[in-house]
Amino acid sequence: MTRPKFYLFGDSITEDSFNLGGWGASLANYFSRTADVVLRGYGGYNTRWALKVLDRVFPFSHGGDAGTLTAPIALTVFFGANDACLPNRCSGFQNVPLHEYKDNLRSIVSFFKKRWPTTHVILITPPPIDEDARLRYPYVDNPEGLPERTNEAAGEYAKACIAVATECQIPFIDLWTEMQRFPHWRKVYLSDGLHLTNEGNQLVFHEIIRKLREGGLNIESMPVDLPLIGDIDPNDPMKAFL
Amino acid sequence: MTRPKFYLFGDSITEDSFNLGGWGASLANYFSRTADVVLRGYGGYNTRWALKVLDRVFPFSHGGDAGTLTAPIALTVFFGANDACLPNRCSGFQNVPLHEYKDNLRSIVSFFKKRWPTTHVILITPPPIDEDARLRYPYVDNPEGLPERTNEAAGEYAKACIAVATECQIPFIDLWTEMQRFPHWRKVYLSDGLHLTNEGNQLVFHEIIRKLREGGLNIESMPVDLPLIGDIDPNDPMKAFL
Repeated sequence: MTRPKFYLFGDSITEDSFNLGGWGASLANYFSRTADVVLRGYGGYNTRWALKVLDRVFPFSHGGDAGTLTAPIALTVFFGANDACLPNRCSGFQNVPLHEYKDNLRSIVSFFKKRWPTTHVILITPPPIDEDARLRYPYVDNPEGLPERTNEAAGEYAKACIAVATECQIPFIDLWTEMQRFPHWRKVYLSDGLHLTNEGNQLVFHEIIRKLREGGLNIESMPVDLPLIGDIDPNDPMKAFL
Repeated sequence: MTRPKFYLFGDSITEDSFNLGGWGASLANYFSRTADVVLRGYGGYNTRWALKVLDRVFPFSHGGDAGTLTAPIALTVFFGANDACLPNRCSGFQNVPLHEYKDNLRSIVSFFKKRWPTTHVILITPPPIDEDARLRYPYVDNPEGLPERTNEAAGEYAKACIAVATECQIPFIDLWTEMQRFPHWRKVYLSDGLHLTNEGNQLVFHEIIRKLREGGLNIESMPVDLPLIGDIDPNDPMKAFL
């Protein structure tokens, strides 16, 4: 069989998702005999850049990916943490205005739904921001001493992401809200005020599995690639391979 | 760009390689912007079964994988732990005689070298066995109370694996010997006398990277998929995407 693909498209939180305890690695492990988890994470990218490179990341002509038959089984779209950088602070060049972020997300979703109508496309909101931690772990020179991201701004982008998902009638994970349900979310889920700890990664992993199940995609009903050892008859193993 | 693929072909030690701290996940993280690490691990399989399913695991017609242009950049072949099960013990149905193991490995390597002459194919020997631990973590009913695998037998299969690699002039990782260099290898590298701990996984990961470097494959010389954030001009970000 040709295994279905599961694409992870997003920024550094996606690119880093095969790090120790990462949500991408957990998905690859979960689908180890049923689907190929394909990493398309681009650290620092916002939706404006993502939209610009979309047909290079997902070329139509390569790898038999065109059409419904070879559509990926699922796809996560996880942008917004960089779009939400404040425009007048040290990472301002990554900012994308809120209305454009919505337009871009809408275009990205349309691109996928048009090419692959059957694919489970899941939108993930940016995580909440721990502003104090952002000052302790700066990525670029920050002479002003003001955080380049705020939790309030990230929340506006999260709401916009949910609005697009609702409008497009696709599932979403409201990471911004989910994480803040837990009193110690800053320390438990975030490693540097933005990126994810093991616990944060596991929350994303479990939410994705939950959304897929809610959407009718259960691993139990997916074809398994070649016989499982438990299904091979010890008295006549080769029978399984005829 | 279409990213090159890096296939991991083997038994449960490969299938489990995206588990927490696994060597497959570490490879996917290492190549996160340069190559797609594709998992083809089949728990319990020996080389006889692997050879039987080889053209189903690597179909010629799908995904543009045929020919040198789209050859995978690298491929690990990691079988032997099941072939080395003792024939007259509780997992005897997985045993493959030593001479057939060599023949099978040779056929598997030939299959890949014929289709993809430029691909870095790496053979990995089975790991050493902690026989006491195997009795504590049985997979099947074991009324005899004798380990289904011994370290001595695994060592014979490791030597055979190295002989095939030498004959075929391809790189190999002598995991059986490498692990036993360390006095506490049973506890440090093995979780159940056969499968790998985090440390065991990291040893495999580092050895693979080392072999690839020795073979001339350095991540520094691989094309990066889309501009890195550090190469994007903050004063004119869109320039990077023209």
